[in-house]
Amino acid sequence: MVVVTLLSDFGLKDSYVAQMKAVILSINPRAVIVDIAHDVPKYDVRNGAFLLASVASYFPRGTVHLAVVDPGVGGKRKPIVVKTMRNFYVGPDNGLLMLAATPEGVREVYEITEGRFMKRGVSATFHGRDLFSPVAAYLSKRVRVEEMGRPFRTYVQPSFSVASVGVGFAECEVIHIDSFGNVVTNARPTDLSKVGARFGSHLRLRNRRFTFLRTYSEAATGSLLGLIGSHGFFEIAANQRNAAERLGLKRGERLRISVRS
Amino acid sequence: MVVVTLLSDFGLKDSYVAQMKAVILSINPRAVIVDIAHDVPKYDVRNGAFLLASVASYFPRGTVHLAVVDPGVGGKRKPIVVKTMRNFYVGPDNGLLMLAATPEGVREVYEITEGRFMKRGVSATFHGRDLFSPVAAYLSKRVRVEEMGRPFRTYVQPSFSVASVGVGFAECEVIHIDSFGNVVTNARPTDLSKVGARFGSHLRLRNRRFTFLRTYSEAATGSLLGLIGSHGFFEIAANQRNAAERLGLKRGERLRISVRS
Amino acid sequence: MVVVTLLSDFGLKDSYVAQMKAVILSINPRAVIVDIAHDVPKYDVRNGAFLLASVASYFPRGTVHLAVVDPGVGGKRKPIVVKTMRNFYVGPDNGLLMLAATPEGVREVYEITEGRFMKRGVSATFHGRDLFSPVAAYLSKRVRVEEMGRPFRTYVQPSFSVASVGVGFAECEVIHIDSFGNVVTNARPTDLSKVGARFGSHLRLRNRRFTFLRTYSEAATGSLLGLIGSHGFFEIAANQRNAAERLGLKRGERLRISVRS
Repeated sequence: MVVVTLLSDFGLKDSYVAQMKAVILSINPRAVIVDIAHDVPKYDVRNGAFLLASVASYFPRGTVHLAVVDPGVGGKRKPIVVKTMRNFYVGPDNGLLMLAATPEGVREVYEITEGRFMKRGVSATFHGRDLFSPVAAYLSKRVRVEEMGRPFRTYVQPSFSVASVGVGFAECEVIHIDSFGNVVTNARPTDLSKVGARFGSHLRLRNRRFTFLRTYSEAATGSLLGLIGSHGFFEIAANQRNAAERLGLKRGERLRISVRS
Repeated sequence: MVVVTLLSDFGLKDSYVAQMKAVILSINPRAVIVDIAHDVPKYDVRNGAFLLASVASYFPRGTVHLAVVDPGVGGKRKPIVVKTMRNFYVGPDNGLLMLAATPEGVREVYEITEGRFMKRGVSATFHGRDLFSPVAAYLSKRVRVEEMGRPFRTYVQPSFSVASVGVGFAECEVIHIDSFGNVVTNARPTDLSKVGARFGSHLRLRNRRFTFLRTYSEAATGSLLGLIGSHGFFEIAANQRNAAERLGLKRGERLRISVRS
Repeated sequence: MVVVTLLSDFGLKDSYVAQMKAVILSINPRAVIVDIAHDVPKYDVRNGAFLLASVASYFPRGTVHLAVVDPGVGGKRKPIVVKTMRNFYVGPDNGLLMLAATPEGVREVYEITEGRFMKRGVSATFHGRDLFSPVAAYLSKRVRVEEMGRPFRTYVQPSFSVASVGVGFAECEVIHIDSFGNVVTNARPTDLSKVGARFGSHLRLRNRRFTFLRTYSEAATGSLLGLIGSHGFFEIAANQRNAAERLGLKRGERLRISVRS
């Protein structure tokens, strides 16, 4: 049994996700299909890439990850399969897959060209169903990707900003706000160490002061805190409250976190 | 392994859908359960019928489709199984199932009467759990539907409006607005051909003009377009924008699409 | 094949639920994972407990129920497994599990202490993924809970208010409002009988009058009614309308239902 994961911006109000599952199960009735998320903000390739990267490493080796956030569907962007040291990634060549695939070690990226692994009469508007789902299903049956297309090197590499550090501060970007209102930044634990932050350190963001702690419940209920969240990044949170709303922060915003020595 | 699909207006905030899955798995632990959609607008049998019909043909032969949008639960409407040339449909006799079942070729419609295929002590309020789920589970174990009830002919046939064509225009109805804001009409590709529309043709809706294209990305970002969508119907869309909001269109509205020659 | 159910307040916008599924499938690829609900209001242990209790008894014997509504994550609350006469429950020791577990007959409650059944390097913020998911996965492979920790007696017992009856009235509390707007109270059928309510009886709530009926469709479309809902509790509903909105009722509110003789 092979796991096939699905990520998209299709939502669950329509039948699009079910259409993809139907196609996959028609080709491989033994595929174990797992939804990652389908409420990626519409057309938001960067957020889709973040979510996929946040979960891919927890799945078993050999998983086939199918991801579709595809504003260019039917246009010139290529349909691709990324083969890594662990897994396969199937989707459009717009950077969506590479944030998850790169840390696993990319072996080869293939442009999908062979029509026999697609639905007959591929629609111009729904490659998720007519092209990516069949390809993912055949990969989950261990059809070799080499039969499906040809390797190429000029695939899209997304550029994600990285945090930087100065004397007593880190400059970072909000890369995700989760449904609890936790503000996930692109600062890594090493960035925090470099600027001298330790558990118990006092941090400042704009005119707000809070403490760098291990977990939410170490702060008083309702109080702000900084912590290394479960994604492995520096987060700003509030114990049992929505920190993003309280601070008025949005994805993409740049932050300067100061450490008071 | 047999696929059992679920469609309802129950939402996923409550445990109703999980109760149905629990009942199905208790009877057939090997059933492969796939959600189609549970956010059908409450009591909206027509929208449920559209969603079910939009996806049913992609599932493997022998799939059991269980659908519950059932404002008359506990009243006089009959619980039924529709047996087609491909699949089984289980649900209330209110038209919900027939839009998907009819194109497959209906072999027989059965009223479910045999209590031994229902939960003991069927509730008056939740036939989805107590009656339809056990029936679907037994069908997925290949119990013969003939044992579960008796065929009848007076089942509800939903009447869906069809598009009509005049000289240089098609009259159609909005049958679905998807979560992207794409406006799906009941006009078929043949209706568009009859009125002389070809890819590249200029179309008009009220005072808006746009082009008939193959796919979203052929229009400039934000621009309106007409296209044959993945449901096989004429759609009005906007590249990476919400066309329904921009045009102020709602489901059920009647539209006249003119073709400029 | 063993069923593992998931319930949380994580929502489906993020990848948290998928991270848990990935961990479970990495340990037991044959686990049949079923979502109960992930839109429990954030940190609302009582509502999570209600939802879990509303569905647990429908699953097959031997099911592993994993539930995480855990405002105290990383703090002093214990991670536990509850072993009942039917099933296993895995989650935090904050009362979440006991409302479902108690009616099944609790055999023993274990504090999870053995690190070899957890992810190496358990995070302080996401025990759902790093601790509860591996434990649930091992239980689904029939590893004995006795190996995972030690039994204890001082676990948290949630106190849920019970309805009371007077002469011609029942005092009850709104324990859930479902997505249809049905108002579920904690009054049992026996409470209604005690105060003389029968099908057809006239009930009063504040200045509203309505009838005690068997099912929604016995009331005129849009009319209020009282009934015993599918959870087995007294509900106030409106046929094809949202009763909670119409009456302005919220969860936790106390109600006096009078019976007119």
